[in-house]
Amino acid sequence: MSFELKILGSASALPTSKRFPSAQLLNVNERFFLIDCGEGTQIQLRKFKTKFLRINNILISHLHGDHFIGLFGYLSTLNLLGRNTDINIYCPKDLHDIINKNTEIFGNMQFKINFIYHKDKSPNKIYDDKNIEIFSFKLKHSVPTWGFLFREKQKPPNIKKETIIKYSPSIEQINELKKGKDIKINGKLLKNSDLTIPAKPPKSYAYCSDTAYFEDIINIIKNVDLLYHEATFAKDLFTNAKERMHSTSEQAALIAKKANVKKLIIGHFSARYKNADILETEAKSIFNNTKAVNDGDIFYI
Amino acid sequence: MSFELKILGSASALPTSKRFPSAQLLNVNERFFLIDCGEGTQIQLRKFKTKFLRINNILISHLHGDHFIGLFGYLSTLNLLGRNTDINIYCPKDLHDIINKNTEIFGNMQFKINFIYHKDKSPNKIYDDKNIEIFSFKLKHSVPTWGFLFREKQKPPNIKKETIIKYSPSIEQINELKKGKDIKINGKLLKNSDLTIPAKPPKSYAYCSDTAYFEDIINIIKNVDLLYHEATFAKDLFTNAKERMHSTSEQAALIAKKANVKKLIIGHFSARYKNADILETEAKSIFNNTKAVNDGDIFYI
Repeated sequence: MSFELKILGSASALPTSKRFPSAQLLNVNERFFLIDCGEGTQIQLRKFKTKFLRINNILISHLHGDHFIGLFGYLSTLNLLGRNTDINIYCPKDLHDIINKNTEIFGNMQFKINFIYHKDKSPNKIYDDKNIEIFSFKLKHSVPTWGFLFREKQKPPNIKKETIIKYSPSIEQINELKKGKDIKINGKLLKNSDLTIPAKPPKSYAYCSDTAYFEDIINIIKNVDLLYHEATFAKDLFTNAKERMHSTSEQAALIAKKANVKKLIIGHFSARYKNADILETEAKSIFNNTKAVNDGDIFYI
Repeated sequence: MSFELKILGSASALPTSKRFPSAQLLNVNERFFLIDCGEGTQIQLRKFKTKFLRINNILISHLHGDHFIGLFGYLSTLNLLGRNTDINIYCPKDLHDIINKNTEIFGNMQFKINFIYHKDKSPNKIYDDKNIEIFSFKLKHSVPTWGFLFREKQKPPNIKKETIIKYSPSIEQINELKKGKDIKINGKLLKNSDLTIPAKPPKSYAYCSDTAYFEDIINIIKNVDLLYHEATFAKDLFTNAKERMHSTSEQAALIAKKANVKKLIIGHFSARYKNADILETEAKSIFNNTKAVNDGDIFYI
């Protein structure tokens, strides 16, 4: 199953010529989730050759412009291209009003937007299909802000080739094996573990932008395979980070370490950093498996 | 005097990975005029290394999203960067409401926006300073749309070096010469044309996007040094152009020819054209001095 993340924008509020504002595209088994939608997201979606007409779910973390104003252009374009199937937007309640009062920008919308408002409950399951569950959870920022946790579901075990050849199990027996049960063939009880190969362990991804250092999220994102955590500032700007309720690269790394994640990626860099080397280096001093992202990066989870 | 145009976006409603939506920056003697402001304009302004904090005047042709939604990000950025001087936006009246009802996107605006509404009078002078006059004029599109004519003012003649050496004219006499008058020195009447060199003829630029073929504009833009005219479609899509009230490349060229302009640039290309060669070729068959623009192009007028 594919489970890959494409970085569309990695700037903070002020975009640069190399970094667009926040946006990411998560592909879970060819279902596409757009996470935040800063200005120019539709341009990045084209530039990085995504299947951008196939996005059915958009998650917006909070209502600072650099995380959602790309919706104006993106939704207009979907409309111009004749989309007629619903799109779901998981978002703070006020986004619904913002979209409603700007309908003249979109023209006559040919498709329906279902708004699913974030709740204060944290974590809160917001999406569930056969492959994945998604949870929103509260972050700590100057306006109500949510992170997202994507958890693949455990897949059933695969039947060994030899099992098929030796026992020719019936469909019912295969279903039992898929459920992890032992089966009886010709009166003989055979152990599931002898007949199957366990599926790969389920993968997980957590998105945390924007937030001050906030230990409440550690239990929620514990052990994820990949964590994106904002790192707007280097450690010498600790005070700026605190005032603006953003994180330093060290704080992002400390969260990664305490949550025992497998890999950390950092972004949402202040425009003052011509490149993100200093931020990556500082984070690595605390959590070695860290990468500072660039627009266009792909991570296979 | 500098009089140069930078193309920031040359796409039509659907941007591509190479063309952003409509936006241009005109530099008239270090005064900067932003003409339309499609999504991502602030990113293009940075990418093409413009003095984007020094723009004091923005002209919006009409209220299709691809011509103004970049204002959300651009104005937010000015605010974040601490701008505190007024900005003037020349626009259709309804833009004022759109900005007003979206103030939460910008945060607490630290600067004032002066909205100057376009009038039905066509042409109508909307701006005047010591270097330049700007006129708006009606185009023919599916919503009320205006083009813009920028006309440099005639500069006074320059005093010849020999005049200074030979006659040592007083400041009053120099001022008379600058006004084009003859002067008396030692009782002798000297002709202005013998003492001065005429200033360069004033330059002019006209911006026409979006519009169907519309001969009413010919008298207004007559003889301009540079004309930008939209050319959304090639000639085989004449019917599409007509239906959507856009122009073909041939129609753009025909306007340029009838208006006897010096040079034509075309843009606002449909996303179906991977490159604009066909559009440029078709236009050239009617008006040879034509160039299909790309984002980042600069034209010295």
